[in-house]
Amino acid sequence: MSVALVGAGPGDPELITVRGLARVRAAEVLVYDRLVTPALVDETPQGALRVARDELTQDEVNALLVEHGRRSFVVRLKGGDPFVFGRGGEEALALAEAGVPFELVPGVSSIAAVPGSALVPVTHRGVSQAVTAFAAHDVESLDVAALARVPGTLVAFMGGAGAKRLAQRLIEHGKPASTPAAVISRGTLPDEEVVVSPLGAVSAANRTPALLVVGEVVAVREALALRASAA
Amino acid sequence: MSVALVGAGPGDPELITVRGLARVRAAEVLVYDRLVTPALVDETPQGALRVARDELTQDEVNALLVEHGRRSFVVRLKGGDPFVFGRGGEEALALAEAGVPFELVPGVSSIAAVPGSALVPVTHRGVSQAVTAFAAHDVESLDVAALARVPGTLVAFMGGAGAKRLAQRLIEHGKPASTPAAVISRGTLPDEEVVVSPLGAVSAANRTPALLVVGEVVAVREALALRASAA
Repeated sequence: MSVALVGAGPGDPELITVRGLARVRAAEVLVYDRLVTPALVDETPQGALRVARDELTQDEVNALLVEHGRRSFVVRLKGGDPFVFGRGGEEALALAEAGVPFELVPGVSSIAAVPGSALVPVTHRGVSQAVTAFAAHDVESLDVAALARVPGTLVAFMGGAGAKRLAQRLIEHGKPASTPAAVISRGTLPDEEVVVSPLGAVSAANRTPALLVVGEVVAVREALALRASAA
Repeated sequence: MSVALVGAGPGDPELITVRGLARVRAAEVLVYDRLVTPALVDETPQGALRVARDELTQDEVNALLVEHGRRSFVVRLKGGDPFVFGRGGEEALALAEAGVPFELVPGVSSIAAVPGSALVPVTHRGVSQAVTAFAAHDVESLDVAALARVPGTLVAFMGGAGAKRLAQRLIEHGKPASTPAAVISRGTLPDEEVVVSPLGAVSAANRTPALLVVGEVVAVREALALRASAA
């Protein structure tokens, strides 16, 4: 049989792709991440084996996919897109090495969808023609000097606690403290929280997962709100 | 009534989201881009007004959305994600200003899905923890010096013709000519074409749309192919 590496999207269960949902509905085995919404887990057929990966190491997940993938149709369901901070490449390598056929079904990444849910377009004509997304769980290990200089919008994936420290380091490396920024936690979910401030006033997110968005595009959100209220 | 700004995804019609397809199936008016696959246009109800935007200026598109959005349910269907090089922000601003309610339905952006379709993960543990996507239709206007220094994977959206010139400019600004690269044209579609080479040997894509992917993650594709053939 085979394994489908499927992106569940940013949180809202209707933001999975049509093909992704079809795969989940055909799964004999579902291996899913903590961030995947229960509504999607519930789409698996009755009798399917459902395995939450929380307590497993990556090596154990790889072994599980190979073992079940040899004889069943396995869906590996991940938040966002499997190839964006999702370790889908590692699982694909393990499957390829074991000779288990696999398929990639991309998902809506949080890169643009979470800022979008807060009405922040990551690119906007005349404002930003580039977006850099990076994992910022370990702020001290980042090449902040390079990140502070890259043109366009920055999107940092993080637990939330590091947002203030990352903002400080970007400012130390030359990013203006007045740059518009937003901390978005639990984006696209019913309890989404958006806090807009200049980069110099960014504080930690209370909830997880969170994104820090930095760039002039954050001001588009404000323009949208103003125009909508004035109309 | 209202307007839904919907991302159609990277090309393959099954990569639209569940919500996006539901909106298309409920559309009274559909305004769609050239890059949107006909299979999705065909999902609109019989009797719906379908408008290809090809010959219209952006101002004309904005006016069309406002005019129809006042009295009908309009779906504005765009390739990829509306807020990633999609000018969705401009359309949202026009709708907000006119007082027409709108909703954003994100899509699978080509940022990760097109490299993914070529089995290139844009992030990979120990290889790349960042991805920078940028519009490269006008190579000469880019801040290539900053782009050459940013850590992680580069993904350039382009017509295809500029791939060689962009590669040359990245090398001039210090990106090693040996950096793995791939030019992917018509990603996720049946006639997808992938050409892998070192950055120094990149040549123009023959077909459009195309992405240039630059970074060590391109080597993961080769590792996948090798392991799969050896297994």
